[in-house]
Amino acid sequence: MSSLRELYASDDNRPEFRTNMNVDFVINYKIPASEQAEAEAGFTQLVQVLTKAGVASEVRKGVDDSSLLVFIKVASEQYLRSKIYRERVQDWLYGVRVKAPEKDIKKVFEEEPVNEAERLRVVYLLLTLPKNEGGAGITPKSGQWKYVESIFPLHNHQFNKQWIKQWSSKSVLKEEDISEIRDRFGERIAFYFAFLQSYFSFLMFPAAFGFGAWIILGQYSWVYGVVNSLWSVIFFEYWKKKEVDLAVQWGVRGVSKIQHPRPHFKWDHEAADPVTGEPIKVYSAKKRLQTQLLQIPFAVVCFLILGALYVFCFSIEIFIGEIYNGPFKSYLTFLPTIILTAATPTLSTILGNLAERLTDMENYETHDAHDAALISKIFVVNFITSYTPLFLSAFVYMPFGNLLVPYLDIWRATAVKLSSSEKITTQGFHINPDRLKKQVIYFTVTAQIVNFALETLTPYIKRKVFKKVNEVQTEITQKSAKTTTASASDPPQEAAFLERVRHEAQLDVYDVSTDYREMVVQFGYLSLFSAIWPLAPVSFFINNWVELRGDAVKIAVNSQRPIPWRADSIGPWLTALGFLSWFGSLISSAILYLMSNGPEGPGGEPYNISGWALLLSVLLAEHIYLAAQFAVRHALNHLDSPGLQKERAERFSMRRQLLEETIGQDLHVEKPLPDVPTGEKITRAALEEEARQTSLRGHGTPEEAFWQRQQGMDETITVGRNLISSMSAANRTAKA
Amino acid sequence: MSSLRELYASDDNRPEFRTNMNVDFVINYKIPASEQAEAEAGFTQLVQVLTKAGVASEVRKGVDDSSLLVFIKVASEQYLRSKIYRERVQDWLYGVRVKAPEKDIKKVFEEEPVNEAERLRVVYLLLTLPKNEGGAGITPKSGQWKYVESIFPLHNHQFNKQWIKQWSSKSVLKEEDISEIRDRFGERIAFYFAFLQSYFSFLMFPAAFGFGAWIILGQYSWVYGVVNSLWSVIFFEYWKKKEVDLAVQWGVRGVSKIQHPRPHFKWDHEAADPVTGEPIKVYSAKKRLQTQLLQIPFAVVCFLILGALYVFCFSIEIFIGEIYNGPFKSYLTFLPTIILTAATPTLSTILGNLAERLTDMENYETHDAHDAALISKIFVVNFITSYTPLFLSAFVYMPFGNLLVPYLDIWRATAVKLSSSEKITTQGFHINPDRLKKQVIYFTVTAQIVNFALETLTPYIKRKVFKKVNEVQTEITQKSAKTTTASASDPPQEAAFLERVRHEAQLDVYDVSTDYREMVVQFGYLSLFSAIWPLAPVSFFINNWVELRGDAVKIAVNSQRPIPWRADSIGPWLTALGFLSWFGSLISSAILYLMSNGPEGPGGEPYNISGWALLLSVLLAEHIYLAAQFAVRHALNHLDSPGLQKERAERFSMRRQLLEETIGQDLHVEKPLPDVPTGEKITRAALEEEARQTSLRGHGTPEEAFWQRQQGMDETITVGRNLISSMSAANRTAKA
Repeated sequence: MSSLRELYASDDNRPEFRTNMNVDFVINYKIPASEQAEAEAGFTQLVQVLTKAGVASEVRKGVDDSSLLVFIKVASEQYLRSKIYRERVQDWLYGVRVKAPEKDIKKVFEEEPVNEAERLRVVYLLLTLPKNEGGAGITPKSGQWKYVESIFPLHNHQFNKQWIKQWSSKSVLKEEDISEIRDRFGERIAFYFAFLQSYFSFLMFPAAFGFGAWIILGQYSWVYGVVNSLWSVIFFEYWKKKEVDLAVQWGVRGVSKIQHPRPHFKWDHEAADPVTGEPIKVYSAKKRLQTQLLQIPFAVVCFLILGALYVFCFSIEIFIGEIYNGPFKSYLTFLPTIILTAATPTLSTILGNLAERLTDMENYETHDAHDAALISKIFVVNFITSYTPLFLSAFVYMPFGNLLVPYLDIWRATAVKLSSSEKITTQGFHINPDRLKKQVIYFTVTAQIVNFALETLTPYIKRKVFKKVNEVQTEITQKSAKTTTASASDPPQEAAFLERVRHEAQLDVYDVSTDYREMVVQFGYLSLFSAIWPLAPVSFFINNWVELRGDAVKIAVNSQRPIPWRADSIGPWLTALGFLSWFGSLISSAILYLMSNGPEGPGGEPYNISGWALLLSVLLAEHIYLAAQFAVRHALNHLDSPGLQKERAERFSMRRQLLEETIGQDLHVEKPLPDVPTGEKITRAALEEEARQTSLRGHGTPEEAFWQRQQGMDETITVGRNLISSMSAANRTAKA
Repeated sequence: MSSLRELYASDDNRPEFRTNMNVDFVINYKIPASEQAEAEAGFTQLVQVLTKAGVASEVRKGVDDSSLLVFIKVASEQYLRSKIYRERVQDWLYGVRVKAPEKDIKKVFEEEPVNEAERLRVVYLLLTLPKNEGGAGITPKSGQWKYVESIFPLHNHQFNKQWIKQWSSKSVLKEEDISEIRDRFGERIAFYFAFLQSYFSFLMFPAAFGFGAWIILGQYSWVYGVVNSLWSVIFFEYWKKKEVDLAVQWGVRGVSKIQHPRPHFKWDHEAADPVTGEPIKVYSAKKRLQTQLLQIPFAVVCFLILGALYVFCFSIEIFIGEIYNGPFKSYLTFLPTIILTAATPTLSTILGNLAERLTDMENYETHDAHDAALISKIFVVNFITSYTPLFLSAFVYMPFGNLLVPYLDIWRATAVKLSSSEKITTQGFHINPDRLKKQVIYFTVTAQIVNFALETLTPYIKRKVFKKVNEVQTEITQKSAKTTTASASDPPQEAAFLERVRHEAQLDVYDVSTDYREMVVQFGYLSLFSAIWPLAPVSFFINNWVELRGDAVKIAVNSQRPIPWRADSIGPWLTALGFLSWFGSLISSAILYLMSNGPEGPGGEPYNISGWALLLSVLLAEHIYLAAQFAVRHALNHLDSPGLQKERAERFSMRRQLLEETIGQDLHVEKPLPDVPTGEKITRAALEEEARQTSLRGHGTPEEAFWQRQQGMDETITVGRNLISSMSAANRTAKA
């Protein structure tokens, strides 16, 4: 790829990669030819708003003849620092930081310098937060700012180059490598890499075990099934703990509580917060619930549409592959694949858009709630598209194939009708026991490779094509208008740099959830179906080594530099993982039961299935799974971890400090005790004083009398000893 | 009961109930006749240690001739206040309190006065905490303090009287009533009453629905089963939320994090804490795990012993009740009941003691961990003793009775051998379909009544008997020794008070976990078996109304005043409830399936059971249960509650205050913005200054050059507008 080569080219001849010109962000501002006046007014407003927000700006020609690039940097470092300090204080107030930042700002930044991610995040918030929260309120592509196409930071190419170089030569990534990502791209992306790295390391075990099982135990081994299921429990529970640990180490635990409002949120009315009295924007929970209920028809629709597609292709495939014996068989075999390849992405995109529309309608107040709702819908779509073919093969084709095949006769009838000939010949149907395995191999090897290729090549090709189109367009425009190109009018010292920025402006926006989705779906194959073909984890292990680096390249080369958001976990994907791990115990056990009771050879008989035994396997497997989960969770809860230790240490020192501040110096010295008379103090004077006190108050209350019977410790002891010796006397006489 | 009558007697003639003589705690100190010298030395030490801890003491004669009563009060109110203040500060440091206590102690106690529970708890901790934590280190019944029989506070009889009077005349308890309990007896006991009250209120629904179901749907109705299961989900999830809410309202949320060390904890060695560097006591986790593994054989032993007992009695019962027809049948029918009645409590006690021994061996560091481990073991024992008879009937007798009855012939053979006669006659065996229902009625009505009667009568009778024995003993001693009785030597003003304290010293210690256990077992009947007899909740509803008041009487009259511990939940019982609720979905569905497929009339045939249908019912029921739980949890999570609102309000005001303190006065006034030139400022002077700066640093870096192209906002706008108009020109010419 040319971009990757660019990065590797020696620095000397590409000086534009060595500096970002102190630019914090670049705004890509569109000027549509038809709405030029409005766009111009908007541009003026933009620069004014930026200036008011304390941000300096420079304008240059844009990526083409209908856009501008506005370069932005915070006007004063001190101002930025005060913003960052404020954010750190807020973190502390929300319990994200254990220790309060020092009051001396200088010391704060000496102790904990600002890293790129923090700086960029705070600047981005300064640009985009609503005005009442201290931001400039710029919301790309919407409302007043509809011509703001994007706001993006510039890549740090020196770091990127080193990053890609290091990772591709390293076989194992360490925590420091992930930490570095965190400092540059923020915790949300660092969490993805940390997750992928953990998952990759954990895969080593099932890969080795699966390879062994494949050689020794063969397929459909329940030993492999049990080990795989246990592994998924351990991995899931481990990650849950690891996630918290990383969040603590990175100082972002609980950061998800600090929510940023979604600018697209529409409220019904404003009301006073019952607690704080501040005005809050309210959207009726009932209305939202009504919209949320649409998820049920949505899921049903997804299931019906995609299910129908799969059943359709599946039946054609079986008919053509295993029954049909007429002309064009060798071509017709590809028919279902062609239909699927054409229809699935289209349908997925349509359903994905529908999911986005639905989520928009649900009108969440915060970004996180919105994303979580969207992800759960996308997960449903992905679940159906990814696993339905295997479900059909495992639970319909294999056990009931013989019963259902007669119904496939409609295809023969259709074919006869279409070709108006009676010569469609068929062969006898036999269940193909290898079908399931072949499908699993397809999904776990072929599809992974294809997917990776698409992921890395598509944006590259797309870019090349767009560039060409643009070039041709500009050429045409130039020829007719005789204006210069954007780059031609650039100051020569900046030309290369601006060219580079224009390139970055055209790159895709990196969306980490696409990558998560890919990994979660892969985890699902492992958990649900790998018992069918124990080499699956080996394939995933290799794939993920490449994936880890490929994703790095994707961010560094094929995408705009992402906004470095924070996060304290992998978010809703955790739920998806937990669900797949649990569901795996059900599906694996059912498949293993079905397959171990069917004839192994080709041309098998209808399976000898007993319903209660199948259900019993599933029931047992599920409850063993749940028990194992309980045990693993319990065991892991008792382990210590560096993050938790760090937190404990911080809490301890904070407590000590606060205690000393609050209670004073007497923390380790016991407080002087109250004056309990010990007896030596019963002097004449004291007795007289007491008598005086008593006579002053009359004869004293019964309570006073009660407590004055024994004056001081020594008297209490004496009286007690007397009582004891009188007892002993009584006992002696009793015995005598 | 005389004690209850005492409480209700008019105050005028029982002045000893109107004052506690300012006593905080009473120590019941034993002087065994054989170890008098040692006990005397111990007594001296006790008084010395108390004095050193800042506590005043008075000694009086004890409950009998071999004990003393040591009365205790904190010597200075100011000292106690400083202790309470310290505890409140600690609460704040551990996050239990949101707001830091004011630095002005006086103001703290004006804002939040000390209630009885807080005072007593702090004094108790002062007495019992180890010396290095600022206490006197008195550990009743162990080590140096083995003669300290008990340390107990005195009842507030004026409150008790009013409490019992109020509750027995009120039909519904309100939150304030529970709050009052909290102020007097601490949160741990308040949580029990809050739980019982919530459970009681919730029972109203299944009681009404069950009554309706009993009339309309009859027994074994799946509609009732489903509704009952859903109800248990809602109740459980509601309580989980309610519990947190109460903890917040009572200011004890997270209090379980503040652990009190268990004095009986034995450590292997001391080590430095890796975090704080303080010495900590370490007990090898491996050793503990090894001991914990003994729980498995413990559970197996419980199951085998109790299971064998039940199977034994069960088979005899069936043999005698439904097969045997020989002599003494009417007497022999009682045989199994007699065996069970005799053996179960004995075995339960033995197993309970075993559980305590095991838990002691597990050697936990804190009270809470110890209690949780003990409770989980006790729960296993209770689970087996409570539900096995019903399991046997539902899953062995009803479906397989006909198959198993031939094996019961050994009883006939045994009987023949024992009576050496051949005249043992038998009748044909028919499954008695009413058996299960009768058993459920027994457990849900008869047993509850018997239990309640035992609970309230036993301590009373026990006390009466002990008192009589004591009196007789003292009389004998007196006759021979001619000493006076304890009371005879009392000062007359105190005699009645001391008599009352001696009475309280002899009362049982109240253990809230017994009461929890009872309720949790009851919940289990409801969740597991109430589909058999839908009137069960009606019975529980009535029972719990009485139970709620009975437990109040138990605390007020039949027990020593409990130590007012804090708690932030019902603790391990919550897990038990969750387990029973989930397990109920399995068992109910299995029972409903089995019963709906058996003939209803008497003398039924072997049941027509299909394994897969049974398993499918269970599987479906469980997953519907889990889905319902998920939905209810989700829905409840979105509800607000007074406790959470209170917490939010506190956090908000704290944040506001801290923010003002940390960042200063500029919270609501925006910080002065950095000086971004807006254009008007481009004066001659500024330009000259800039030129000077540039020339000083040579021609300036490329970065400087980049940002100096457009000087100020106005210039940026002008340049941008020029760019836009040149585009528009280009476009126009292109179009032309």
